[in-house]
Amino acid sequence: MTHPLRKHIEEVISLTDEEFNFVIGHFEHIKKRKHQYIVQEGEIVNKEYWIIKGCLKSYFVDTTGKEHILQFGMENWWITDYESFVKQTKSKTSIDCIEDSELLYISYENRDKLTAQMHKMERFWAKKSKIGRISLQNRILSLLKNSTKERYDLLLEQYPKLFQRVPKKMIAAYLGVSRETLSRLNS
Amino acid sequence: MTHPLRKHIEEVISLTDEEFNFVIGHFEHIKKRKHQYIVQEGEIVNKEYWIIKGCLKSYFVDTTGKEHILQFGMENWWITDYESFVKQTKSKTSIDCIEDSELLYISYENRDKLTAQMHKMERFWAKKSKIGRISLQNRILSLLKNSTKERYDLLLEQYPKLFQRVPKKMIAAYLGVSRETLSRLNS
Repeated sequence: MTHPLRKHIEEVISLTDEEFNFVIGHFEHIKKRKHQYIVQEGEIVNKEYWIIKGCLKSYFVDTTGKEHILQFGMENWWITDYESFVKQTKSKTSIDCIEDSELLYISYENRDKLTAQMHKMERFWAKKSKIGRISLQNRILSLLKNSTKERYDLLLEQYPKLFQRVPKKMIAAYLGVSRETLSRLNS
Repeated sequence: MTHPLRKHIEEVISLTDEEFNFVIGHFEHIKKRKHQYIVQEGEIVNKEYWIIKGCLKSYFVDTTGKEHILQFGMENWWITDYESFVKQTKSKTSIDCIEDSELLYISYENRDKLTAQMHKMERFWAKKSKIGRISLQNRILSLLKNSTKERYDLLLEQYPKLFQRVPKKMIAAYLGVSRETLSRLNS
């Protein structure tokens, strides 16, 4: 059976068996239970994660104690605090598991070594980074432009499976509304 | 004198004279006057721009006719509608010049060819893409978390020279407030 990460990478670039073995040698495998963290606000993040199985959320808590969800992550997504990971500064967000999750991760050093040695992987991540940037740009357009109802519909379109997998209060924290407002949108 | 683009690229990776000549051969030079467009909403964007001199804004107009500014661009910044450029779909934003501007641009095909042939340039743009992504992430955090006053202060911190260069109404359109609210923040 083809390794799921190989399948994922080969959507962008093709690899020989030898190349994939070299790539996968730079990753570690980890299991996390629901509610466990992979990134905590304030730490310097040294790993980028790829989700084999599970569901996670990236979020921050404002000064009033309210949680805001920046992004969700599910199967085949890459997730970390990119500012902290790239600049090696303190993370402004936390990331934890909404479900029991199975992840691969690569350290900052290994990612840098791998991309420096292997143009194909540089190209692969460059593509992923562009896609991540587009998704953030659309989130901004949506925050500036759309009503809560429109943002709800966009989320449903972007992550159709999410609504079966995560509690309503998290959908509300992503949209920046109360659960009561969410229920009205829902009905 | 070192070419300004070479200086800019060499902040990330070093190039030989021969390599830089190869790179610059993929770019075209263009001058635009104040108010002229480089990207119009609805078109498929085929160029990424690098600002030699000038000031531009990326924005969209909502259904009520209100202008929202996504980002400003000044000297040494890369600018385009990345969703349209990367996915070759219709642009959701427009980009025009706030000042007379001097730009270099590279076509989609040339950028793809250049990055495929030259690992160093793939690495350079991968880095730039990561930085663009971080800047968008911070804009989202700021939209979700900060008061208008805090967002004003962040903008001032991020683009200190901007406040001398652009009209107040554009600062307001970036912050998503009226000019009257902006004047109160300012005083």
